[in-house]
Amino acid sequence: MNRMDNTQTADKYIDSHPFFVEPFHVDFTGKIFLGVLGNHLLNAAGNHSQKRGWGIGALNETQHTWVLSRLCIEMQEMPRQYEHCDVKTWVESVMKLFTNRNFSIHRSDGTVLGYARSVWAMIDLETRKPCDLLTLYDGDILRYIVPEEKNICPIEGHGRFRFNDPQFVRAIDTYYSDVDINGHINSIKYIEHILNLFPRENFEERQLSRFEIAYKAESYLGDKLSFYTQVIDDNETDVEVRKFGDSTGQKEEVVCQAKVYFK
Amino acid sequence: MNRMDNTQTADKYIDSHPFFVEPFHVDFTGKIFLGVLGNHLLNAAGNHSQKRGWGIGALNETQHTWVLSRLCIEMQEMPRQYEHCDVKTWVESVMKLFTNRNFSIHRSDGTVLGYARSVWAMIDLETRKPCDLLTLYDGDILRYIVPEEKNICPIEGHGRFRFNDPQFVRAIDTYYSDVDINGHINSIKYIEHILNLFPRENFEERQLSRFEIAYKAESYLGDKLSFYTQVIDDNETDVEVRKFGDSTGQKEEVVCQAKVYFK
Repeated sequence: MNRMDNTQTADKYIDSHPFFVEPFHVDFTGKIFLGVLGNHLLNAAGNHSQKRGWGIGALNETQHTWVLSRLCIEMQEMPRQYEHCDVKTWVESVMKLFTNRNFSIHRSDGTVLGYARSVWAMIDLETRKPCDLLTLYDGDILRYIVPEEKNICPIEGHGRFRFNDPQFVRAIDTYYSDVDINGHINSIKYIEHILNLFPRENFEERQLSRFEIAYKAESYLGDKLSFYTQVIDDNETDVEVRKFGDSTGQKEEVVCQAKVYFK
Repeated sequence: MNRMDNTQTADKYIDSHPFFVEPFHVDFTGKIFLGVLGNHLLNAAGNHSQKRGWGIGALNETQHTWVLSRLCIEMQEMPRQYEHCDVKTWVESVMKLFTNRNFSIHRSDGTVLGYARSVWAMIDLETRKPCDLLTLYDGDILRYIVPEEKNICPIEGHGRFRFNDPQFVRAIDTYYSDVDINGHINSIKYIEHILNLFPRENFEERQLSRFEIAYKAESYLGDKLSFYTQVIDDNETDVEVRKFGDSTGQKEEVVCQAKVYFK
């Protein structure tokens, strides 16, 4: 079965998704907010999947959906206000329970600004359990794994988290603007809240160079999120986000973990 | 002097600015966040001005900039996820210290979804004082006032605020993600924080139908904002946002005021 609509895409493996850096999408240094960049990556991923018959609209018909498990972005340079840029994306590999999708971010003249890696699982919407990607739709997704020579993503893979002594920084309430169409706190909002932990000087005097996040559990409108940090070295701070236990006696649970690098 | 680049625009008065309703730009009911819609309006305004030689880039050369004073959006229907829409915008009128700019919001098939009104002042970047729009650049802006028959914006103008007994709801800290390139808390973020005051039921069971905001003073990264509400009737709640006084003994100051209507 070939689920791809060939009329819609020029390259079988790699799509290019243009974006423009809008005035309200940049921080006080004039560089794009990482959350906004993350949103462009997820849109590029969504379009790439959709054109190949693997978009969430098509998947919903068979009661499946994609779940973002990890995202890692490493930038040599951040897109600036009014720049025209592109995200390129492709499928690096497919395993039974996960698929790796890579990205490169370019200025419109072709200059590479950075790269990103992501890991996705497919779940059954009813059971919420992961599906076997190798057999779903007769393994159709395997057709889209990029040839090795085209898989250009020279950044390190996702790291391991070891929280020995994380320090509590703050707790926040979650509100209407944090929540996506599924009723979950949206993946991008965690990135914003995590970067909000860092002082002004980090953005003024240094540059956010790499950001990794692993999504562990969902949180919902009204959940109180607590943020813990652990300084690894001068460049790296790890962050753990937990949701408070509820009145039924449920314990605090890890929602996501991140590694934030400034250079 | 004609500051307009005629090659860039089809209509002398009215521009159309397309937008697509992205997945992460909708709330848990599948409708666009009002803040995101507001961002599209401001982008449309920016482009319309820029094409006529009145964009902030050109203005900065003579040490001037636009300041948004009021914004009022009234929607019969909110754009939904994956819809292609357009914002049309034009200059309604120009007075000495203010100009009125109107908007209509359409689905791509032309269906009107709503309208908006805005009021802008021009300030001198050095003195921060308002300029005389009727004489700046020899009154060039008067050339772009739309003919009356094209000024179709059938919603009420900006209302008056009378806070008799506003109730304190919450105070929030402002962080990195709240701040724009000028170092101010950005106009859109106030809209988000104000809507975050309302419970889930307002969005689930009713529809946000009209939102007015008047910007009174700037606030900055790290300012603590306090939110006060006053219920006017079953449909309207007014909101006042104040920034706390600082350690030098400065008093609490009104930052912005809003009227929020649910139907």
